[in-house]
Amino acid sequence: MQPRVKLWVEKDGLLVFSDYRAELLNHIARTGSIRGGAERMGLSYRRAWGKIKEIEHNLGVRLVQSEAGGVGGGRTRLTAEAEELLARYRAFRAAAESDVSRDFAEAFGRGG
Amino acid sequence: MQPRVKLWVEKDGLLVFSDYRAELLNHIARTGSIRGGAERMGLSYRRAWGKIKEIEHNLGVRLVQSEAGGVGGGRTRLTAEAEELLARYRAFRAAAESDVSRDFAEAFGRGG
Repeated sequence: MQPRVKLWVEKDGLLVFSDYRAELLNHIARTGSIRGGAERMGLSYRRAWGKIKEIEHNLGVRLVQSEAGGVGGGRTRLTAEAEELLARYRAFRAAAESDVSRDFAEAFGRGG
Repeated sequence: MQPRVKLWVEKDGLLVFSDYRAELLNHIARTGSIRGGAERMGLSYRRAWGKIKEIEHNLGVRLVQSEAGGVGGGRTRLTAEAEELLARYRAFRAAAESDVSRDFAEAFGRGG
């Protein structure tokens, strides 16, 4: 048997951050645009943009910033706050998954 | 912000135990019958019985046993294996929830 865990973050009972949202931010960072991040997530630009605005509103932080572009137009980058949010969320996830595995092993033992 | 966690147990990629299943066993134990447990869960008797059989099959353990009854018919009780499964699952859940809260506090700090 294996333990499984799904994690997310709420604020005032509202879902404000999750693996899905972290993945969207990550893809925006990698592709350098909301459009590129949306494509990687199989989302419309409009939906990805709306999700970013929703997270920004719920958490009260700015997540993306645009740089005026040369050839081919500008880039969209994550703000320092978004980078920090991602780093904290990843640290939380890694620690939680490791602890849940250990807790399961302790409760069920090797024989399960 | 608050962390949220959903836990369950898989075996060979198959969901074999969860809060829902623990709750069903618990209600059967409290009411002394599969029918009573089903009612408390808002399930049909057939569906509750099927769920018990499914868990028994997946885990390879017997979960319920019937006692021949006197007045009013027999009782259904949890087997010792089912009681142990419930106790282990509860211990796992309690430890995991506590650890996830601590991991979140460590990753996000008080200021969130």
